Amino acid sequence: MDLNTVNAMSYGHFMDIFGNIIEKCPLITGAVWSKHPFSSFPELENCVYEFIDSLPPSGKEGILRCHPDLAGRELMSGTLTSESQHEQRQAGLTSLSQADRERLTLLNYQYKEKFGFPFVICAKMSDRNKIMEELSSRLQNEKDEELQTGIAEVKKICHLRLQDIFVKAVPTKL
Amino acid sequence: MDLNTVNAMSYGHFMDIFGNIIEKCPLITGAVWSKHPFSSFPELENCVYEFIDSLPPSGKEGILRCHPDLAGRELMSGTLTSESQHEQRQAGLTSLSQADRERLTLLNYQYKEKFGFPFVICAKMSDRNKIMEELSSRLQNEKDEELQTGIAEVKKICHLRLQDIFVKAVPTKL
Repeated sequence: MDLNTVNAMSYGHFMDIFGNIIEKCPLITGAVWSKHPFSSFPELENCVYEFIDSLPPSGKEGILRCHPDLAGRELMSGTLTSESQHEQRQAGLTSLSQADRERLTLLNYQYKEKFGFPFVICAKMSDRNKIMEELSSRLQNEKDEELQTGIAEVKKICHLRLQDIFVKAVPTKL
Repeated sequence: MDLNTVNAMSYGHFMDIFGNIIEKCPLITGAVWSKHPFSSFPELENCVYEFIDSLPPSGKEGILRCHPDLAGRELMSGTLTSESQHEQRQAGLTSLSQADRERLTLLNYQYKEKFGFPFVICAKMSDRNKIMEELSSRLQNEKDEELQTGIAEVKKICHLRLQDIFVKAVPTKL
């Protein structure tokens, strides 16, 4: 996909393509369209992060609360967004042993009880063992620290989703 | 539903119940949960509006861009949220004559071309004739004015959706 194509998109088309770069937060995609035309793809990406950074802590917590649990009820019931489904599968979360799934469910529950938002991690940059370790370790942190870490992970997820979009529509060179 | 029930909800339960009070913006619901416990239902509602008012213009435009067209492609393809489906049906938008639907499609298009966001109106407080008049008239406004008007309509929609939630779970007195 070239930049001119993106800059020429109506907001509707832009929402169709970029609507889920932040999980279940099309509001952010819609806000970013206000900043077009973009001079580069990194500038577009930066507009997403600037918008997120401008939100009060409650807004950042709101973003985290739009994220599903890892290997949680949405995965089990098949109601994940296609992006999350793909990311959780790639991290091996769709083929956990029952013992691991139970352990992850318990840790997710403890995390949510402690912080009031779900554990968010860029699953594509990890795997099920690392995710389990990371979750146990982050459970020990303070809330402010976890909010920052969670939002940093949201940005990593967004970065990879954007890369997928940019690459997907580039004509393959044979 | 009583206030204690709402205040005792986990964020997950709260998102399930209140997630679409602002169309396709669960981020806002998530942000509002940060403010619980609420001293009253109006206070909860006020938290929603305060969050919206705190957003920069791009964020408010982002909210409008999450809204479907009236009698648009989502209605035709059956992909509206259940709340929008109900509201558009109640306003008579599911039973337009072909001529009216074509006129509305053209006006929606002109509105979006001019403002870069969709025409938003609290359909439940209106009907198809008033909606058509209002759309023709608002098309003449300036962008800033329309952004304000659109957000005021978003709040009216939210108010009615909240009322539906609060009332639904109140035990019927026989």
